[in-house]
Order: sequence, then structure tokens, then C-alpha cells
Amino acid sequence: MPMARAKLTEAPEGMPPDGRKRAVIDAVLPCVDGGRFAVKCIAGQPFRVTVHAFTDGHDALRVMLLWNREGHAVQEVETTLRHNDEWHASFTPSVPGRYNYEAVAWVDHFRSWRAELARRVEPDDIRSAAQVGAGLVEEAAGRAKGEDREALLRFATVLKTPAVEPHEVEALKAMALDPLQAALVDRYPDRSLGVSSATMLPLVADRERAGFSAWYELFPRSTAAEEGVHGRFSDVERLLPRIAEMGFDVVYFPPIHPIGREKRKGKNNALTTEPGDVGSPWAIGAAEGGHKSILPALGTPEDFRRLVKRANELGLEIALDIAMQCAPDHPYVKQHPQWFRWRPDGTVQYAENPPKKYQDIYPFNFETEDWQALWLELKSIFDHWIGEGVRIFRVDNPHTKAFAFWEWCIGEIRKLHPDVLFLSEAFTRPKVMHRLAKLGFSQSYTYFTWRNTAEELTEYFTELSTGPGRHYFRPNAWPNTPDILSEHLHGQGRPAFAMRLVLAATLSANYGVYGPAYELMENTPRSAGSEEYLHSEKYQLRHWDLDRADSLQPLMTRLNAIRRENRALQSNAGLVFFKTDNDQLLAYAKRSDEGDNLMLCVVCLDVRYPQSGWVELDTAWLGLAQPGDAYELDDLLNQQTFIWRGGRNFVILQPGQAHVMRLRRGVRNERDSESFQR
Amino acid sequence: MPMARAKLTEAPEGMPPDGRKRAVIDAVLPCVDGGRFAVKCIAGQPFRVTVHAFTDGHDALRVMLLWNREGHAVQEVETTLRHNDEWHASFTPSVPGRYNYEAVAWVDHFRSWRAELARRVEPDDIRSAAQVGAGLVEEAAGRAKGEDREALLRFATVLKTPAVEPHEVEALKAMALDPLQAALVDRYPDRSLGVSSATMLPLVADRERAGFSAWYELFPRSTAAEEGVHGRFSDVERLLPRIAEMGFDVVYFPPIHPIGREKRKGKNNALTTEPGDVGSPWAIGAAEGGHKSILPALGTPEDFRRLVKRANELGLEIALDIAMQCAPDHPYVKQHPQWFRWRPDGTVQYAENPPKKYQDIYPFNFETEDWQALWLELKSIFDHWIGEGVRIFRVDNPHTKAFAFWEWCIGEIRKLHPDVLFLSEAFTRPKVMHRLAKLGFSQSYTYFTWRNTAEELTEYFTELSTGPGRHYFRPNAWPNTPDILSEHLHGQGRPAFAMRLVLAATLSANYGVYGPAYELMENTPRSAGSEEYLHSEKYQLRHWDLDRADSLQPLMTRLNAIRRENRALQSNAGLVFFKTDNDQLLAYAKRSDEGDNLMLCVVCLDVRYPQSGWVELDTAWLGLAQPGDAYELDDLLNQQTFIWRGGRNFVILQPGQAHVMRLRRGVRNERDSESFQR
Repeated sequence: MPMARAKLTEAPEGMPPDGRKRAVIDAVLPCVDGGRFAVKCIAGQPFRVTVHAFTDGHDALRVMLLWNREGHAVQEVETTLRHNDEWHASFTPSVPGRYNYEAVAWVDHFRSWRAELARRVEPDDIRSAAQVGAGLVEEAAGRAKGEDREALLRFATVLKTPAVEPHEVEALKAMALDPLQAALVDRYPDRSLGVSSATMLPLVADRERAGFSAWYELFPRSTAAEEGVHGRFSDVERLLPRIAEMGFDVVYFPPIHPIGREKRKGKNNALTTEPGDVGSPWAIGAAEGGHKSILPALGTPEDFRRLVKRANELGLEIALDIAMQCAPDHPYVKQHPQWFRWRPDGTVQYAENPPKKYQDIYPFNFETEDWQALWLELKSIFDHWIGEGVRIFRVDNPHTKAFAFWEWCIGEIRKLHPDVLFLSEAFTRPKVMHRLAKLGFSQSYTYFTWRNTAEELTEYFTELSTGPGRHYFRPNAWPNTPDILSEHLHGQGRPAFAMRLVLAATLSANYGVYGPAYELMENTPRSAGSEEYLHSEKYQLRHWDLDRADSLQPLMTRLNAIRRENRALQSNAGLVFFKTDNDQLLAYAKRSDEGDNLMLCVVCLDVRYPQSGWVELDTAWLGLAQPGDAYELDDLLNQQTFIWRGGRNFVILQPGQAHVMRLRRGVRNERDSESFQR
Repeated sequence: MPMARAKLTEAPEGMPPDGRKRAVIDAVLPCVDGGRFAVKCIAGQPFRVTVHAFTDGHDALRVMLLWNREGHAVQEVETTLRHNDEWHASFTPSVPGRYNYEAVAWVDHFRSWRAELARRVEPDDIRSAAQVGAGLVEEAAGRAKGEDREALLRFATVLKTPAVEPHEVEALKAMALDPLQAALVDRYPDRSLGVSSATMLPLVADRERAGFSAWYELFPRSTAAEEGVHGRFSDVERLLPRIAEMGFDVVYFPPIHPIGREKRKGKNNALTTEPGDVGSPWAIGAAEGGHKSILPALGTPEDFRRLVKRANELGLEIALDIAMQCAPDHPYVKQHPQWFRWRPDGTVQYAENPPKKYQDIYPFNFETEDWQALWLELKSIFDHWIGEGVRIFRVDNPHTKAFAFWEWCIGEIRKLHPDVLFLSEAFTRPKVMHRLAKLGFSQSYTYFTWRNTAEELTEYFTELSTGPGRHYFRPNAWPNTPDILSEHLHGQGRPAFAMRLVLAATLSANYGVYGPAYELMENTPRSAGSEEYLHSEKYQLRHWDLDRADSLQPLMTRLNAIRRENRALQSNAGLVFFKTDNDQLLAYAKRSDEGDNLMLCVVCLDVRYPQSGWVELDTAWLGLAQPGDAYELDDLLNQQTFIWRGGRNFVILQPGQAHVMRLRRGVRNERDSESFQR
């Protein structure tokens, strides 16, 4: 039918360039702040994307997911509609780095035609539809080449075959719906009216350790074999096999740089020092050097490089603590006075939070007009240690440095070194902690240390694993740090330490301990109510008897082994909590992404008395065929096996004790116990 | 102290233009899809904005909310920090139209200084701080003029006064902290390092009726005084005072255009007609005209204009139904054949959803190359009726027309006529309905019609009032429409109709009824399980005896009066549901924005048997001083007053009956009944 068609000229004001584009992409998820920040994922693991897309009326849509590694070619994968206009696809970033993804959708006339044809019953309708289809297939042939083109033209000819008798119409419909032919046509769609999602969304793929790691923090200076002697990197080397055997991945040191002498703090944070006081490693810089130097008492750069190499041979990594601040005698203060804030009396403004004063610490002034040089120098500190073989940094109080600096610094470093990881040591307000994670920090400290009751733990870890932060904020749970002896550990012994360790190691895929103090259950605060340790290693050498009979070493070793053997514990995505009828019993479970590993933990939060009660599991989560079916749970911590039945089971636990249990696949059937897969 | 300062040149690659900007705006809320779509509000009512903003460290921030009406000057209002880095401010768009808003934040050195000074105790620290403060105040003076400048210089001089004796230092500190001086300095901040939120967020302010309205739908052709006679606009005029007295705001008509003769449907949607069959008003267009014409049997354009005027005099508005589709004999089909899809046999493709066919309806082909002309013509339909005095349109099945068209069409119309409202008649999938609301529809039909149980109603209305859609999707709840006699009304009488009416009118600030059929409780489906009415007005004239003794008119009148008298019912923002121990009893409440109007509804969902049970109110919601305090509830529907006590109270209701109660302010105290404010 010939008809008048207006030429497409420039659209009248307010109209889009091509109003014939009818597909709508309403959302591409996950997405952080509309694409302002990158989503995080793990290289080598599938990254799942959901596209909300639809069109007007009943026409069929096709939706593609486009992605690329930055600087590499764009690849495309077709999505599948599950329900509720949500289209799913995934891709696997093979190596760490920055990636992008977006969606493209179009109204697909061939698919619409085919879906309608399948529902047509009247012969005339089928005959007419076949003619329409022939036209669509010929258009597809016009976009194809070679054999495909020939095959499409043959299909079009088939569709044009006159069908008179009822059986001919039947045959025509069947041929028209041939799935092989449909697959061929699908390869040559008309994408001229396709729409793209507005933005290429950024994605950061990290190496596996970003998502699953166990950290062991120690002060190298306290590792000497002999009490009272300043430890050296060679002493740390001696300890490495033990730490590796315990199953840790990361050995993390407080700052290893020269320590300021001016205003040095004495033992227990005293304002004055006594002879021999070693000062706080966070008061960085002295005549012998600053952030790129090593405290001579610890060893030489060569010693450090050997240590890093030895650690790597044992499957360990050395993480350094980078604190962007200076002792008064740091070389920067003389070399770059403009990087600091000056008081009217001609002295540098030290750190303070009135009335508290930190006279041994000079913060950088991020509002200096010389900010560009400051940024470049601070970044070069990371670059220096990367050059020395370090790939993980714990950043001290990043929330007291300019946010824009971190985004730039981490972004620039990862351009060249996408395997470098950053742990944000920010114990501050939630939005600030989240912002740092958005800006690029790979892992973040958490409020775990202050979450104690079943209600607190459930609420907090549910938020971490299901809230919007799950796409960019990777929690790293620490039961203690050199700064934090949390109040619920004060004066406590084994049950409290064991319990908090199990919680950290099983609730969070990333966790860490301030190792020697935790192994030996160091529990005396400097004063009642203080979170500081008495005789804190921050201000003095300590000597740790790691061979002590009551050390937590065996429990740590066992927990780390369980974590490595069970994929469910290597991610936070599959975390769920279950009800118990006793608020001193916390029950939760993790399921691996593929659903083939299910771990169930029940922890006694009471550190003084045994507790018992009923745990209410979700039978759907258990995958029971019948609600009352029996199943076996292997307690990997206590080397026991339990037979439970249905959703409701009774538990009795000693103070601080925990079951860390793996559900055996397959359900135990009393009448046919062979169906059970051991 | 003189120091080397690098000149600010262009920033090295990857660095921001000015890295000294330390304030961070993490979010400006509400915000729909990152600012891609407008948030909706009501002109004359405060629009509340929350800004998530912070900076590194402990410095003080100032955060401003900037806003303007499009084409008008930008205004600024300072926000206040409540908690958790959330800063609040509001502004009131005075008239309907498009507005924008954004936030600006900066680190405020004067405020930081003042906050720190307040906590300083050592005389030397206070002396030093006063010197620093003097510098800041002098800088502020440099930005001020006239008297303010002089006053600031005087304040700086005060700060520079030497303070030797302890009492002098005390006095210096007190003067430095003088709030009047602080307010003066605050007027001249250093905003040079201020940051803006990335986007000016769009906001649409509508007139009040967009958020609060009661609709009454009727077929003008069925309004003749005499049975069997085709009703005219003059007949509708006769009914208007009654509808106005019933408290409705909007009288809405199905399409009033000439009805196609070709393929016209007979009574009860029959494929063939009998003589005198009037056809479906949605089969638009015939020889005498199309979407801009009036069916001659209804009256003349002059009659219509008089009707609109008469309605307005009574406080009513006439809403028209615009259905973007054509009968086969619509003039468009001949004039613009390129706007339709053609079949190989040379006929126009009618609407179908195989195997269903709608031969009397031709849809427009929104993929026509002549789309620009099509869009312009379709928009001109609205323009035509706006010219005739119409300000509200109910749009038929907008989800079967191109989405991009709606965004353009509504946007363009509202540029000139920001008072024009659009109701989206899309009963389809959730994301599609939401998209239409985002694109500009002022109100939307809902799933209310199919939500029956307490659980369904609670879940759905909680989603509507608290989900992300609350910023752009305004529900309009209809217990029936000419298309939908929902199954739970089939064969039901007064209890079911009364109950569904109360639910619609109290759960949703916008609601409507297909009036005559609802008043008279029309309840016979065309066939069992069908949602179509038997003898549907869509295909034939009906005669409604509105004076029937059992009409729901009194209940409708009472409900509309209650809605008008109680601001809580004029919005959905304050909706909460309360638990009952009987799932046939639904309890919910609404609170006005200012908290001065509290309405509590308890509805018996059982339409056959009386139900009783305990309602568990939230005593915090009630505002009780003591959990067991007594309070009075006036049942405005049944003209009763109840004295309830505490959170838990017993209710007994007849089938379909409801309490619609207002909480009296003040709590009845047994020992001091005078404290009760009547």
C-alpha cells in the first residue's frame, strides 16, 4: 500500500531526535548513585546485572547487556526475562580492573510476530501472518551475508508458500514457528530503533582477597625472641610460618617508619618520655626519614623486601598501615611548611579535638594552595611501597583527610596496579564510612566491635549484607584492634574471646585480629571504661608468649580452615538469620552463590552461663522435601555430627560456645537411609 | 609566617579543578532516578528536602538549599543539621509549575573556630584562638559593606584585645562566642570552596486537586430523565448540583466524541449491532468528526462549554477521557493512512491480542516515519479541550502508546498550562505504571480493585505511601469502573459496597467511583468470573434510578464531608496500619502533616458476618503520656463517641461496617477530666 510518508527532519522543539524508539530502559542494576561511583565485584566470579525494561503494549522486546574492560572492546550478552519486566544476564570480568556496563533494548518485530502467530488459530489469520513474517525475514536477510542470507531467503520463500487446505495451513504455521529458523532470524535483528541506558555504569573488579581474607595484625617491634629487645623484620620472618599455618592471609603492620622524637609520647600515652621509650609508630617521621623510610631498629629496606618475599612464598601478604600525618620532626615540616596550618604564634597547628590535644601529630592542611604537590607526594608514598612489593594498605583515619584526594589517589594507583587493595580504617558516622567505600576503598572497618546482642548483630549484619552498601562496602570485622579493647572483652577470658572470634570469622567474609593480644586474650584496659589497652603496644615494646597453653591459636587455625573449605563463608551475600527463643543464642546461616555449600552457626552470646533454646530454621532454606524431614549437620568446630529434624530444633551451648555446622546435601530419610549422600 | 605557595595552575591529569573543596554532598533527597524525572509536590504546601552532607575531620559545615521556579530567580534557604549528617530545609512553591532544587555546602572556618573555642579551657589556647578568630572576622569584613563591615571590624578589634588576667580571658571568650556577633559573621561566609550537588533536581508542583480529589464517573448518554432516551449535556447539568452536594470534585465522562459505525459493537460487546445500538464511546470517530468533535446526540460545543461553566460554578470540574485510538471510520484513517499499520491484504491492522480481536479499534502506529505529525496532532486534541475549559484528563490505556510521546506531550502542555492534570488509566505491570507516573501523569489508577484481604491491603498501601514511588506516583483508588466489576462485588449488596467505598475514600487521598452503578450497587457480571457488567453502559444506554431508597448516596456524602474536614485524609503520607487479632478487621490511621489531625479507621472486611477483636494501637502514635491513659474517639461516620484506653481496645463491627474516627486532642485523665480539650 503506497502512502505518503513525511521525511524525518529535525524534531520540533522538545521532541526527542527519534520518537519511534519505543523500548524503555527504566533501570540497570546494580548501580551506585546513578553511576557516579563504581559497583565492586570479584574478578573471575560472575557479575549479575538486572535490567528493568519494557515497551508499550504487547510487543516483544530484546535486551542486551554490553560490557567492556576499560580500554578494551565492548562485548555483548543477551539477557533473559524472568518476571516483572526484569531482564537478567551476567558476565565474568576475568582480571582485576575497571569495567563498564550498559543495556540496549529494542522492540523486536520478528519476536512479536512469532509470539502472536503461536496464538493465532484462524486459517486466514495464519495465512496473512505468514506474509507479514516473510517480509520481516527478508529484512533480516538484507542484514545477513553468505550462507545465513541464503538460508533466510529460503525461509522467507517457505513463508510465502500458498496454503489452501487446512493441513497446509497447519504445516505453514509449524514451519513458521520452527525454533531453528527463529534462532537464525534472531542473529540479524533490526536494531535501528534500539535505546541505550543513559550511562555506561562503572564496575571495579578486585582480586579474590578483596572479598575474602583473614588478617593478623602485629607490631614487628614486639617480635624479638628475647623480652625487652626491639624486634626486627627478621624476627617477624621467624613467625611467618606459624601465622601461615594458622590460615591467615594478610599480616598487617602498624607504621614501620622512623618515629618522631619531638613531643614523643611515653608509655600508656604519657606526655613525657623516659629513656628508652619507643614512641607511637603513628607519630611518623624524624631526622632519619619519613613515610618512605623504615625505622632503622626494624631493619633495612633489604630486610623488608626479603620479608615480603618470604611471606609471599608462604601464601601470605604483608599489609602496611599508611597514616597521612607527621611527627613534628618529620622532614616534610621543614621541606614543605606550606602543607601545614600555622598558628599566630608561629608554630604548626597540631592535631586537636578541644580540649584534647595530640601534640606529637601534625595533620596536613588539605586546603593548602599547594594541594597539587601535596596530593602527588602523598600518592608517591603508596607508589614507593608498591615498588617494595606491598599490595595491601590499611589507611589510618581516611575520614580526616580530604575525600576528593582519596578518589583521585586510589583511582590513579589502581589504573596501573588494579591488584592493590585499600582497607579504610574509619570508625565514624555511617554516611562517611560509606562515602569512603564509594570513593574506592576495597574494604572497610565496621561497627562489629560495638555490636553485642543478638538484636544488634542481626540488624547490623543484615544491613551490611542486604542494604544498598552491599554493592560497594565490603566489611572487615575485627573483634579487637590495638586501639580498641572493646568493653565486652574487659576482664573476660576464653568464652568471650572465642565467641567474638567465631562471630567475626563466620559473619564476615573479611575479618581480622590484633593477633598476639587476641591469641593471649589480653583484656586489661588502661582505666575502667577505656577502650585503650593497659601497657598498649602503641607506646612500648611488648613480649608475647605465643606458646602459652591457653592460646586461642587452635581455634583460630580451625576457623580459618573451615572458612577456606566452605565457599558459603567466603562471601556475605547469602547471610540469613534465624529466630531462636533465647536471646542469648544467635543463629544464622550462609549459602554459597551456587547453593552447594550451606553453613549454619549457632552461637552462645552468654560468656558466663550455658544457654539452651529452640532454633527455628526456615525449612525452605534447608531445602527439605517434607517439613519434618531429618538431616545431618557436621559441626566442623567441635567435630560432631547432629541429626536435626524439620525447622525447630533444640540447642544447648556452653558459655561463648558455638556450633559451626555444614548441612550435608541430601536429606536423611529414615526408611531409606541410603538416599543420604555422605 | 611567610611561606612558599605554589601557584594554582591547571590540575595534573585526573585531579579535580580545585582539590581544596572539602565539603561532600552525598545525596539530595527526594530524587527520582538521579534527577532524570521530577519529584511531585503540591503548590502552597512546604516541600521538604534532606541533604546528606559532611566533610573530613571535625570541621563545621554549612549547607544551603537553592531552588527556583523555572525561568525565575534562584532563592536560597539554609538547612539545619538534625542527625546522622542529614541536613533539612523546605521551601513552598507558591504556584503550580516546574521548579528545580540543589544544594551547596562548604567547610565554614568561622563556625569550626567557634565550636572549638567553646570547648577550649586553657587561657593560652583561648588567647591564641582569639587571634585566629580576629583574622577570620576581618576576612568576613572584607566581604561586607557599610554598617555590617564596620561592626565586623569592631568585633575583630575586640578579639585582638590582649587578655592577661584570668577574668579577662573569661571575658574574651564570652565576647568571642557572642551569638549576635556570630550571626553577623554568618552573613558573610567564605563560599569560595563551596561544592554543589551535581544536578539541579526537577520538581513539579501541582494544584491541590492533584493530591486530593473525589471523582464521580458517569456516561452522559445515560442521564436522560426518560428511560430509552439518549442523554444530553443538558441532562448532566441537571445532575450536577446533586453530585456537588455529595461532595465530589471531579465529574468524569467517557469519550464524548462521535462513535464509529463501521464494525460497531452491539449490546454486551456483540459483534453485530441491532438498530439503535449506540456503540462504545471508546470506538472514536465517524463521518461527523473525531477526537475534537462531540457526538451530536450529546449536544453542541456550546452545550459543552455551558456544562463546564455550570460545573465550575458548583465547585466541580469536568474531566474528559482521551483514548488515542480510532474507529475504522475516523477521519484520521483516510486523512493520515501513514499513522496506521497496514496488513498485506490492504486493510488497516485493528487492535488484537491473539486470538482476541478488536475490529472496531485501530491503534496508531507510533513507529510511523510521520511520527512528528502524529505527536503534534495527538497533542492538539488535549489543546483543543483545554481551549474548551477542560483541565483534567483521564487518559485511556496510556501504556499502549509510546512512552516518549507522553513525556513530551504532558511536558509541553504543562509548560503553558501547569494546572492541567492527567490521570493514567494503566492497569498493567508495576514498573510500567510507575514509568507513566514518572513521565508526568499526575495521578494513577491502582491495584486497589484487586486487593481484598487485610494482608493485601496493608502491604499494598504501605508500599504506595512509603515506597520510592511516593515521590511521583499518586494513587487514585477506584472500587469499580465501567470496565471492572471486581469479583468480590459480584452478587454482593450494601455491606460489600459500603466497605470498599470506605476503604477507597480513607486509604487514598484520591479516589473515584463509577458513580450511578456504585450508588445503586450494580453487581451482576456479564458471565460468571467476568469483570464486565451485564448490560454494560459501554455498549448501551442505561437508566439509573438515583432516588432509590437504598442508594449509597448518604454514605458517599458523609465520607466526602469527612474527607474535606480532616486534613489527615487529604494525603497518604501519614498512613500507618495497626495489628488486630482478627484478620477480618483492618485497622489503620492517618496523621496530618502538622500532626494536628489524627484519623483512625477500623473496617470489617467480612461482608456476611459480624466480626470482633482487639486492635493494637501504637501508644506513641496516640501520643499518650501514660500507656494506659484514656482518650476519646469520635466516629464521624456513625456519630458516636468512644472512650478507649491505652493501646489495646476491643471492637465489634457489623458486616462491611467501619469506624472512621477522629482522635480528640488531649488525653482524658480520669483524675482530672478538665485537662481534656473538647
